[in-house]
Amino acid sequence: MSVSVFEHPILSGLLGDEPIAAQFALSAEITAMLRFETALAVAEEEAGAIPKGAAAAIATACNTLKPDIAALRDATARDGVSVPELVRQLRAMLNPDLAAHVHFAATSQDVIDTALVLRLEIVLEEIRQPMDALVALLDTVDARFGNRELMAHTRMQRAVPIKVSDKLSSWREPLVEMRDALGRLQKTVLRLQFGGAAGTLDRLGDKKAIVSARLAKEVGLADRGCWHTNRTPFAELAGWLSQLTGVLGKIGQDIALMAQNEVGGTSSALAHKQNPVAAEILVTLARFNAAVVSGMHSALVHENERSGSAWTLEWMLLPQMVVAAGCALSTATRLVGSIEDLSAETNSGPNP
Amino acid sequence: MSVSVFEHPILSGLLGDEPIAAQFALSAEITAMLRFETALAVAEEEAGAIPKGAAAAIATACNTLKPDIAALRDATARDGVSVPELVRQLRAMLNPDLAAHVHFAATSQDVIDTALVLRLEIVLEEIRQPMDALVALLDTVDARFGNRELMAHTRMQRAVPIKVSDKLSSWREPLVEMRDALGRLQKTVLRLQFGGAAGTLDRLGDKKAIVSARLAKEVGLADRGCWHTNRTPFAELAGWLSQLTGVLGKIGQDIALMAQNEVGGTSSALAHKQNPVAAEILVTLARFNAAVVSGMHSALVHENERSGSAWTLEWMLLPQMVVAAGCALSTATRLVGSIEDLSAETNSGPNP
Amino acid sequence: MSVSVFEHPILSGLLGDEPIAAQFALSAEITAMLRFETALAVAEEEAGAIPKGAAAAIATACNTLKPDIAALRDATARDGVSVPELVRQLRAMLNPDLAAHVHFAATSQDVIDTALVLRLEIVLEEIRQPMDALVALLDTVDARFGNRELMAHTRMQRAVPIKVSDKLSSWREPLVEMRDALGRLQKTVLRLQFGGAAGTLDRLGDKKAIVSARLAKEVGLADRGCWHTNRTPFAELAGWLSQLTGVLGKIGQDIALMAQNEVGGTSSALAHKQNPVAAEILVTLARFNAAVVSGMHSALVHENERSGSAWTLEWMLLPQMVVAAGCALSTATRLVGSIEDLSAETNSGPNP
Amino acid sequence: MSVSVFEHPILSGLLGDEPIAAQFALSAEITAMLRFETALAVAEEEAGAIPKGAAAAIATACNTLKPDIAALRDATARDGVSVPELVRQLRAMLNPDLAAHVHFAATSQDVIDTALVLRLEIVLEEIRQPMDALVALLDTVDARFGNRELMAHTRMQRAVPIKVSDKLSSWREPLVEMRDALGRLQKTVLRLQFGGAAGTLDRLGDKKAIVSARLAKEVGLADRGCWHTNRTPFAELAGWLSQLTGVLGKIGQDIALMAQNEVGGTSSALAHKQNPVAAEILVTLARFNAAVVSGMHSALVHENERSGSAWTLEWMLLPQMVVAAGCALSTATRLVGSIEDLSAETNSGPNP
Repeated sequence: MSVSVFEHPILSGLLGDEPIAAQFALSAEITAMLRFETALAVAEEEAGAIPKGAAAAIATACNTLKPDIAALRDATARDGVSVPELVRQLRAMLNPDLAAHVHFAATSQDVIDTALVLRLEIVLEEIRQPMDALVALLDTVDARFGNRELMAHTRMQRAVPIKVSDKLSSWREPLVEMRDALGRLQKTVLRLQFGGAAGTLDRLGDKKAIVSARLAKEVGLADRGCWHTNRTPFAELAGWLSQLTGVLGKIGQDIALMAQNEVGGTSSALAHKQNPVAAEILVTLARFNAAVVSGMHSALVHENERSGSAWTLEWMLLPQMVVAAGCALSTATRLVGSIEDLSAETNSGPNP
Repeated sequence: MSVSVFEHPILSGLLGDEPIAAQFALSAEITAMLRFETALAVAEEEAGAIPKGAAAAIATACNTLKPDIAALRDATARDGVSVPELVRQLRAMLNPDLAAHVHFAATSQDVIDTALVLRLEIVLEEIRQPMDALVALLDTVDARFGNRELMAHTRMQRAVPIKVSDKLSSWREPLVEMRDALGRLQKTVLRLQFGGAAGTLDRLGDKKAIVSARLAKEVGLADRGCWHTNRTPFAELAGWLSQLTGVLGKIGQDIALMAQNEVGGTSSALAHKQNPVAAEILVTLARFNAAVVSGMHSALVHENERSGSAWTLEWMLLPQMVVAAGCALSTATRLVGSIEDLSAETNSGPNP
Repeated sequence: MSVSVFEHPILSGLLGDEPIAAQFALSAEITAMLRFETALAVAEEEAGAIPKGAAAAIATACNTLKPDIAALRDATARDGVSVPELVRQLRAMLNPDLAAHVHFAATSQDVIDTALVLRLEIVLEEIRQPMDALVALLDTVDARFGNRELMAHTRMQRAVPIKVSDKLSSWREPLVEMRDALGRLQKTVLRLQFGGAAGTLDRLGDKKAIVSARLAKEVGLADRGCWHTNRTPFAELAGWLSQLTGVLGKIGQDIALMAQNEVGGTSSALAHKQNPVAAEILVTLARFNAAVVSGMHSALVHENERSGSAWTLEWMLLPQMVVAAGCALSTATRLVGSIEDLSAETNSGPNP
Repeated sequence: MSVSVFEHPILSGLLGDEPIAAQFALSAEITAMLRFETALAVAEEEAGAIPKGAAAAIATACNTLKPDIAALRDATARDGVSVPELVRQLRAMLNPDLAAHVHFAATSQDVIDTALVLRLEIVLEEIRQPMDALVALLDTVDARFGNRELMAHTRMQRAVPIKVSDKLSSWREPLVEMRDALGRLQKTVLRLQFGGAAGTLDRLGDKKAIVSARLAKEVGLADRGCWHTNRTPFAELAGWLSQLTGVLGKIGQDIALMAQNEVGGTSSALAHKQNPVAAEILVTLARFNAAVVSGMHSALVHENERSGSAWTLEWMLLPQMVVAAGCALSTATRLVGSIEDLSAETNSGPNP
């Protein structure tokens, strides 16, 4: 089905991003959740919080689980979250004496948040690479055409001539700044969530710290304490994604304006393939994320020790923002790669 | 894949609405598009704009087309819209002398907008029915418990006792008002879009009016002139949908507050099935639509005779808003249906 | 001070609307609040809910009150609302035996909501008139230039020639539709709020209905029952206002594009007075309201019998949306009035 | 007038922040603009771009200017920006041979953006201090009550007992993270804007770099190149501000829930002074910024070398976001300072 353009069989070709969307596929999600459960068992066994041998048995269950999706769906409609049923399915695969050690001391949010972070880790690298490539491509275009003249426009009116290089710099600089900020963002976002029922890991007693540290190491995330009600990492990520689509939207808007026929644009005919579709889509994606980012900020008001309403809102918004950003990057790269000459417009138009 | 919760194999059980989502499935979309093309041919043949016999041939092509989805996807990535390729596939099914009569004088936007409206027609009826049912259910609850006392709360503090009936009225009234507004909204939204390349249907010459009227009749929509750049109908629909989720979100928030254990709520244990998941989800859906409605209003700035960027933004947002509204309605109905007694709280708590 | 452009000594010349802003001045606000208190006393005296003579004394107090603004400010910081202190000041002007009859059975929200509605009544008429005038102006422009040719643009590319009249119609139609919807909107919004502490007017006993009806008549609003927690009227108003600025923003965007020098625009120089400032501002105001409307929808989740947080949010947003709409109307009228010829562009540009 | 609550004579006591609002007063704005012009003259004289003696004369004019506000207002309505008229007024104070050296090579945006940044520099320090104070206050509360028990709530239901200290940590941690991010944000935002007509400072020839560096030093900002179309610094600031109000909104929401009478809250009566007004306002301010941040992201699509529409949108939104954040900080500090005991709730309620 196709409520979302990102998964629409046709529109995802225009507005989707397959590699990033793949990280939000159910299979990737469940894999990440099971990775958490497996790692938790390893950490807890090492700390003596669960018996020797439990981890290996749990790992086997995780590796061989064939999740009953219909049951997960039904349970989620009731529980608001899939973890209790997933844990139930895992436990059903184990001897009764081992079953209770699955998911020991953890809560649903630990699994869901960490599993999301594990996929965001991959996604952010998948975004870094095309950012680097786009910056490099802008440098290439600059090397080819940078010295040509271009008419600057302010307030939608011709201003003074600049170089193509100046225009390219105005596209490049914010991208470079945002890429430089990505490392910091990764530090902010890529952390283990592990807090138990109410954030205090009470059931682990004095083994809290050691299990948490070991679990973080096992899943390759930072151990910076429970952040179950601190949603600023995701709000900051959402802001960064929306800034990225905004910066790319500016490139799109500029190119759509330069591609106007009167300005010396792409074509004089209505041939679809020459329409500045990619340029327009960049503006669309910027407006999309600019609207949606508002919901991610709204979700910061996360009451008490777990807000079902605020937390669920993140699930509705963040994956879409990530895919929109990925799509904008690939679209911008394709668009900039197709630039043949930005300078024509200074030679045309009624006011040369 | 599951970028969107509305199509997520598990989360759609919590946040989706299958009957409404079905209207946004690709098959429903293509069916509606082909319905437009078929009806257009009928109208144009009757008006003498295309030859006798063309309509029947075109109808057959539409009825038997097996769309090449991969080609549609590739073409859409290039053209920004699927219609040119869909028309190409239709034309390839016809004799060369008839091929040109497919989609004659129409433009992609005519097909896409009208096909969306045709599905919204179904969807709005699908929303009306549960609205009626929910109002009736509130009346039933009122008949059972309305006379009991309930403590009113203002600014999150106990105020004065009211009746359960008063609380139910505060939920019912806005629903009734919105249902009463639905007929008007349907009039606003359910109109044929038919304007041709630039909204003027030039290629039909003096047959414009007759073809337009006949086409409208054939697809069962009002003929109120071309509205290709007037996106207020969709903004108004988006506003209505967000008002609906807002009104239901208020019910959810109220119930979540009443279900607090300290207020005499559902349970004293952490049993998942007794968590007020449905109540929380209503708040989530309200916040979701409240964020997204902003993008639909942003899309009103639809430049020139067709804005690729503003138009595409609608596709990203409106279907999600509709499904969110449908899900909120069914969730609210389920939740209100589970009310056993709203009055407990006046008998409990530290300040009786 | 100038946190808000609408009250900035300089920027309000560009972005403000004095007549509408005047309705949100403190003096207008207090006048409307006192009008409620006076009318309430009249209604309650007639119904026998307060003693004969009380209404005249209360009216005198309302007419002669010199509000202590500093005290109102301090009290509001504590109470969240100015009414308790305003009532205290009124009561202090009256004999002790009459004092208690001021504001009898009413609550702060009754005063604040009704006083806002009373000013919105004026404001909506102030918006209707320039809407009519703008439609008439568009007709005048059409009569002068409508027959000239203009190049249509789709997806930012030249499409086919249309008439100036077609362009003007695309601006005119949504305005006409919105103006036609204004009467309905007025019916939705212009209603008395009167519910007392928790919406049930308990203190009036069996005089509820008669006092409410008389009060409504006295202030000239409809008596449609208490709507203290039903914020859909304001969400609908916000949506209408944002649709209006969106429709005007489309006009602005179109003109900014047509005014590009290369398209045969206003000037070839950078002279500021020829910049399409008014056209740009229309886009700005559309984007402003499109963002802010989201907050008005968020405020629909109005928990319990009065939500301090959701209610206060309306105060932060709605007045700004109204002024933005008023400014957009006057700006659009000025801009359309300055059109000398929309047709030049078909005669210029590199692809004639 | 009072379109904006931030400048409302009464409501600003509840929702305003005087010291921060003072930075957005017209006088502060003009002072900052003149500081730019004075510093520019110093830098340009030193570089030989304007004659010796010009800087002193320009400084005198800037120091003694009595701006004609009415003329600035009228000109801004026409030009969209106040700088040309301000420069005209300055030039009128100087000998004709010196007049042309005022504002030499600069453009309006250089003045407006830099003058805003200069005031944001002050504002961000004014925000840092109460952040530090609030963190310290939370530590104090923790020292006093941290060991007491408190009932955790997940999904609006009682979960397990935690310590007051755990709750305070959940409030403190995001604040500490945001405060730690403030230094980085200051680096991002506090930079000179200096680009001339189209961002290239052409009129300064080979003196560009030296004038820019000297000007930056004179106004105490970083010289990181022209960023006239790169609005990510302001979007990032807006995001940080909205994250801050979101984090404080979570504190407000928690306290409003804990202050419920049934949970062992503040009072059993409806006495206004005991209503959790401050807690509710924190939620309001969070929702406000969460809506408005969307507009700041929308403004990232800043077309060409200067977008009148996108730039002006920032003026409408950013000052309000800053004041909202300042108000939220002082409100949260007042609220947390009034906490007497968070632990009562574990001893009350129907399900002990």
